[in-house]
Amino acid sequence: MSTRYTALSPTERTRVRRHSERAQTDRAELYAVLDAGMICHLGVVLNGSPVVLPTAYGRIGDTLYLHGSSANRSLWAADGHEVCVTVTHLDGLVCARVAFAHSVNYRSAMVFGTARIVTDDAERLAGLRAVTEQLIPGRWDTLRAPTRKELVATSVLSLPLAEASVKVRTGPPHDEDADLGAGIWAGVLPATVTFGNPVPDPGLPPGIGAPDHIRARIKAGTR
Amino acid sequence: MSTRYTALSPTERTRVRRHSERAQTDRAELYAVLDAGMICHLGVVLNGSPVVLPTAYGRIGDTLYLHGSSANRSLWAADGHEVCVTVTHLDGLVCARVAFAHSVNYRSAMVFGTARIVTDDAERLAGLRAVTEQLIPGRWDTLRAPTRKELVATSVLSLPLAEASVKVRTGPPHDEDADLGAGIWAGVLPATVTFGNPVPDPGLPPGIGAPDHIRARIKAGTR
Repeated sequence: MSTRYTALSPTERTRVRRHSERAQTDRAELYAVLDAGMICHLGVVLNGSPVVLPTAYGRIGDTLYLHGSSANRSLWAADGHEVCVTVTHLDGLVCARVAFAHSVNYRSAMVFGTARIVTDDAERLAGLRAVTEQLIPGRWDTLRAPTRKELVATSVLSLPLAEASVKVRTGPPHDEDADLGAGIWAGVLPATVTFGNPVPDPGLPPGIGAPDHIRARIKAGTR
Repeated sequence: MSTRYTALSPTERTRVRRHSERAQTDRAELYAVLDAGMICHLGVVLNGSPVVLPTAYGRIGDTLYLHGSSANRSLWAADGHEVCVTVTHLDGLVCARVAFAHSVNYRSAMVFGTARIVTDDAERLAGLRAVTEQLIPGRWDTLRAPTRKELVATSVLSLPLAEASVKVRTGPPHDEDADLGAGIWAGVLPATVTFGNPVPDPGLPPGIGAPDHIRARIKAGTR
């Protein structure tokens, strides 16, 4: 079995339809997919039509936090409304003998729920910390605290991890037996996100090297 | 200037609001972002709520093609309705001296429009070819033609590239002058998607090595 679905809620839209034999319930799987990501895609309905925005995010327990400019219309459009946040990792290109059996290996989490603009200052700060730490673990504590002006300019959106599904595909292509002898190369091209050498800011004074948390981030790549 | 917006249509939702001084109109920029991608996120409205699906895609001229199982409800929900397709490349983590100035370098394209399930057989085949070729250029012509049964099991969705916007951020962090002397390392961690060595299918007979188009794909990485 190379595709695994995890439905973390019994709702109609997260119930697994295709390949339902592969369904399982595992919150750890949801956390793993979310925690390995750097960018999510936030879906909101704006004037009746869907809008899909790429944005950073972080997780604290069973709450997802997204942030953006306080001037961002889509964040405000999400406040009090149903949204969908999807995190996807492309793990490989699956090359089969026939076009139909081509696929990709991936891990994907879809979270549904009502988003809220966070108004509590302590939660806003915790949410912003989670977003920064998601991208670069260990970074937040090396920085000065945000100013009031900076906090006002930033909106934080929260989304409970109550209704979600996870889908994971791994392994080789699934060709029909009749196609196996076609003499065509088949297999997987593994894909991963990697970091190159850090590019210091042009304004950085001499003598300030990349700190441990930056070197750890580069080494870890995406998990 | 490190963030560049491109609005390819004069509509309300693609008009650039923030950093509008960076707006430009350039269809080549849209093509470049789309053509460099492997996965898009399709946003549809299902029962009044947004759903964001990761899926493969391809482009022929000014039409985007997506495909999926004919049993996929979201594809059918998109037919004749407004959708949003977003393609995002994460190019780097931007580490500033303060949390507020942290960012990511990225290229992103958002396409809005009315999607259609393609019914014409020739266009369906061309769309499927475009999706395969987007992932692995040169692959399609090495494969046998899809059977009628395979074609029936696959739905192809088309979306015109009429209304779209592109956003690109590059370069170092933008700290305030007052924060430059904080003694904190700042800079960019460049991120890229790379391919590892191909993993041959376990059922591959001996003597069939990875063909040129596979080796070219690995070498090219994501552009």
